Amino acid sequence: MHAYRSHTCGQLRASDVGSTVRLSGWIHRKRDHGGVLFVDLRDHYGLTQIVGKAGSEALATLDRLRAESVVTITGEVVARGGEASNANLATGEIEVVASEVTVQSAAEELPLPVAGEADYPEDIRLRYRYLDLRRDRIHRNIVLRSQVISSIRRRMVDQGFTEFQTPILTASSPEGARDYLVPSRVHPGKFYALPQAPQMFKQLIMVAGFDRYFQIAPCFRDEDARADRSPGEFYQLDLEMSYVTQDDVFAALEPVLAGVFEEFADGRSVTPAGQFPRIPYKEAMLKYGSDKPDLRNPILITDVTGHFAGSGFGLFARMVEGGNVVRAIPAPGTADKSRKFFDDMNDWARGEGHAGLGYITQKGGELGGPIAKNHGEDATRKLVDALGLGPDDGIFFAAGKEAQAVKLAGAARTRVGEQLGLIDEGRFDFCWVVDFPMFEYDEEAKKIDFSHNPFSMPQGELEALETKDPLDILAFQYDIVCNGVELSSGAIRNHRPDIMYKAFEIAGYSRDDVDTNFSGMINAFKFGAPPHGGSAPGIDRIVMLLAGEPNIREVVLFPMNQKAEDLMMGAPGEVSMKQLRELHIRLVPPSGTKAADPAKTVAPE
Amino acid sequence: MHAYRSHTCGQLRASDVGSTVRLSGWIHRKRDHGGVLFVDLRDHYGLTQIVGKAGSEALATLDRLRAESVVTITGEVVARGGEASNANLATGEIEVVASEVTVQSAAEELPLPVAGEADYPEDIRLRYRYLDLRRDRIHRNIVLRSQVISSIRRRMVDQGFTEFQTPILTASSPEGARDYLVPSRVHPGKFYALPQAPQMFKQLIMVAGFDRYFQIAPCFRDEDARADRSPGEFYQLDLEMSYVTQDDVFAALEPVLAGVFEEFADGRSVTPAGQFPRIPYKEAMLKYGSDKPDLRNPILITDVTGHFAGSGFGLFARMVEGGNVVRAIPAPGTADKSRKFFDDMNDWARGEGHAGLGYITQKGGELGGPIAKNHGEDATRKLVDALGLGPDDGIFFAAGKEAQAVKLAGAARTRVGEQLGLIDEGRFDFCWVVDFPMFEYDEEAKKIDFSHNPFSMPQGELEALETKDPLDILAFQYDIVCNGVELSSGAIRNHRPDIMYKAFEIAGYSRDDVDTNFSGMINAFKFGAPPHGGSAPGIDRIVMLLAGEPNIREVVLFPMNQKAEDLMMGAPGEVSMKQLRELHIRLVPPSGTKAADPAKTVAPE
Repeated sequence: MHAYRSHTCGQLRASDVGSTVRLSGWIHRKRDHGGVLFVDLRDHYGLTQIVGKAGSEALATLDRLRAESVVTITGEVVARGGEASNANLATGEIEVVASEVTVQSAAEELPLPVAGEADYPEDIRLRYRYLDLRRDRIHRNIVLRSQVISSIRRRMVDQGFTEFQTPILTASSPEGARDYLVPSRVHPGKFYALPQAPQMFKQLIMVAGFDRYFQIAPCFRDEDARADRSPGEFYQLDLEMSYVTQDDVFAALEPVLAGVFEEFADGRSVTPAGQFPRIPYKEAMLKYGSDKPDLRNPILITDVTGHFAGSGFGLFARMVEGGNVVRAIPAPGTADKSRKFFDDMNDWARGEGHAGLGYITQKGGELGGPIAKNHGEDATRKLVDALGLGPDDGIFFAAGKEAQAVKLAGAARTRVGEQLGLIDEGRFDFCWVVDFPMFEYDEEAKKIDFSHNPFSMPQGELEALETKDPLDILAFQYDIVCNGVELSSGAIRNHRPDIMYKAFEIAGYSRDDVDTNFSGMINAFKFGAPPHGGSAPGIDRIVMLLAGEPNIREVVLFPMNQKAEDLMMGAPGEVSMKQLRELHIRLVPPSGTKAADPAKTVAPE
Repeated sequence: MHAYRSHTCGQLRASDVGSTVRLSGWIHRKRDHGGVLFVDLRDHYGLTQIVGKAGSEALATLDRLRAESVVTITGEVVARGGEASNANLATGEIEVVASEVTVQSAAEELPLPVAGEADYPEDIRLRYRYLDLRRDRIHRNIVLRSQVISSIRRRMVDQGFTEFQTPILTASSPEGARDYLVPSRVHPGKFYALPQAPQMFKQLIMVAGFDRYFQIAPCFRDEDARADRSPGEFYQLDLEMSYVTQDDVFAALEPVLAGVFEEFADGRSVTPAGQFPRIPYKEAMLKYGSDKPDLRNPILITDVTGHFAGSGFGLFARMVEGGNVVRAIPAPGTADKSRKFFDDMNDWARGEGHAGLGYITQKGGELGGPIAKNHGEDATRKLVDALGLGPDDGIFFAAGKEAQAVKLAGAARTRVGEQLGLIDEGRFDFCWVVDFPMFEYDEEAKKIDFSHNPFSMPQGELEALETKDPLDILAFQYDIVCNGVELSSGAIRNHRPDIMYKAFEIAGYSRDDVDTNFSGMINAFKFGAPPHGGSAPGIDRIVMLLAGEPNIREVVLFPMNQKAEDLMMGAPGEVSMKQLRELHIRLVPPSGTKAADPAKTVAPE
């Protein structure tokens, strides 16, 4: 018999009754039952009930071990029979009567229990992550993560993509987020940077003549932590394709995303591949008040600026006259909601720094609230009809400068949807947001600048740049959104130096600026570059959505804490003087503190 | 029709004749043929011959474009017919008569031609890697690499392994090679390190209750370049298993390695899974003079120390008396080799710093060479018979201190095998080298120390440590070797704190030393650790073997050069004062040079 196990702890069934088996695992729980000891033995695959008979040596050994000790059990499989069976457990029909117990590893007292669902502070969980990871929910999440990534890989290969590894020690990039830097030992005073994303590499892979690239790519940004982003590193499904239009990118990616989500949806519905709605940026900002609309929320925002122009409702009329906009956010089926519901919403909006959230109520067609009163019944009725609302649907109003009103309307739409329970948790609703503007007017700098990515291809290419009002030019740039979560942006790239120089010229940069800052890419494009485009959906966010976890910590094996520390490994940590000398650097203590610098000097700041 | 292509450049066949198609790709080659222009259009998938008819606009456009320009061609598929067909090309039966040519990207003059097999200096190749990668051989190598990794992943999953990502920003480790360090912005004076391997993480994954882990893991060592290792980063198939013996690790890994090699062997034979020879370290050093034996070489070394003890051949007799050893390296079928062949071998050995390589020749059973003469015919005949040699087989002798003689014998075995053409290039011969000694005597420090990995489980566990001569204790440590290339070491780990303390005590380290230096691992083992073991075959080396490439640069997409520079991206590069300030470091210029330090001071060294 194998030294450690003939079966896993998830494997034995009624058909194994009578056989002698060997299992190894952790002591999950112990229960003394009238002199008989029951032990739930746990491994990666499941739980099996072990019985220590009264008076047996096995019982004595098991009895003195703490939970989470590792043992090897040899014994006979017996049927539990009738009421003793546990239908919730795959091995619930049997138990193993221990005849021999070998202690592989005796556990000391635990800082964090494994059995049970109790919540523990983050720092304890991360310091003892190897115990935390034994707990059922997180164990399942981590396995799910692995399965999701494996499924993505398979689906990408099925779509004709090839995975490549791009360098992790690379060059610092002038724009974007903050880089992690790595001092070079061989080249004093120079630094590598960890990639914020393999953006340049994937474009160069296309220039190098490969056709459909992907990578489950580690990315690094030295930014402060957020719930949906670990400090330090995260993973994205980085992909790029040659000789494609935007439609081709969508056609390649939809089956992958829909397929992965369907595989792990566990009963939740998923937007079918080929049917992801495409929502122009402008429409998204109007209807959903956001460029990452949650389509599970049935509420649609409407612009009612025109309705209030010159109307009897003085406040809105004056605002409209002053160049502001008014957006209506329906609150369906709110006939039975108290005045407080509406007033609380207004208070919330003020709390968020807005002027307020006006409203109209309806109860069986009867209008209520201050706006209805001021605006007059006929005008209000007309508005309600124009919005196509039913007799029990209320309306909130977000008024102000367009950007402000959009933001408030979007937030109100989400809040109203949540409070009214309108957001169907059983759905994964995908959409593309398309047609982002290429340029925008920078109010601070009083000039036109790129609105998102300067390297996207403008729609209409060179001709559009030369003939259209820059603020009217759209880009072949797109976001993929699921349930209001932006999984990724993406674009058809600008692979033409002539178009790139022109686009930068519009944003106020000279040919020299471009050559200086983006020489690598511009030069590569001069030796034959194919049209290409891609995207890079976030892996961590996909897993968070599928696992239903709001915090990234629950879907990453060994995450850092909010302060970018790995408490288990003790990272970041101090290093030796020898290491610093080899890297040609010394420490500069924060001003005001005593030097910990090997050279024992306090550097001037 | 699609904007860029209806087909790829590797797709059209005779059955497509008559259809109108659109192709996009690079102009690989142009040939003018009596006014007609032939263009080989290339993409990731293949080549298609394009015809520009005399006088056509298409010809005019193609004619003025340089090689490597990117074009979209619309035209009719016609049969080449008879002699014009090219059987070496998948699309060789057809050509496309261009009716329309769209220039996607006009190429400037190239620093590195793509068509042809000419060799170019490394710095040009790496600076313009995106051009180098378009060349046929390297393009195929990189695709092979991707396919190999994909195949490994599939096979690992089939063996029940789950892939996990371990952190890349982690803690500096006290032993091993030199770490790459990453200064922390949030924690002044502290540093992350990039992992030399996820060794601690994979063991903690086992402690966390997962069972079979693998990862195509990026690893980082700040070491100088070698032909088989990039400076900077490399990849390994990192794996670890719980509740396993050494046999289980072999049983899991052999099907993966044999399977991958068989899949890409391209006619070469592969040691079948389940039949990898297991060679004890001691035997490997004796028979092959190496712990990474190339089993394709049929020559076996024999110890003949006893034969020469007290023999008539005074030189060897005296050496043996002085505690030296003599090893015989057969040189089969050397009857027709001149005296020069044998003398050159002796000269080579001296050139390598050895005393020399004595020899005996045979020609149809007739003995020759100085040793045979001195040793006497009868004694020499007896030796030849004892070695089981034929009448045309010569012998070389490596004599000296054991370690020296082993090294010389091993090198001579390889050299003789190569010079006699005995090494079969058509085979991938795998073996395990097992039973490495746990401890060795450190002549310099005059003490017993670990011979390889202090964290391997000693064979016989605690009892062996307590009762045996430390120098007789073997470890459950093993190497996997293919064709003389070490793909990986591996081990059953020591998961027991009591055994670890004892092993370190034998090597002269106190309990405190262990607790201080290895607290993370030791502490984790105190809360229930399963027996576990694993290995980590090098991905780059596997691909190098399969591609038949001696330099790692040929199987890595964007490698750094020998000086750890990425010439294409300009890494490492200079960073701003702001970045250094944020990271609480300043530069220390190499002594003697003027400061480039933001603080404008030269640090004392």
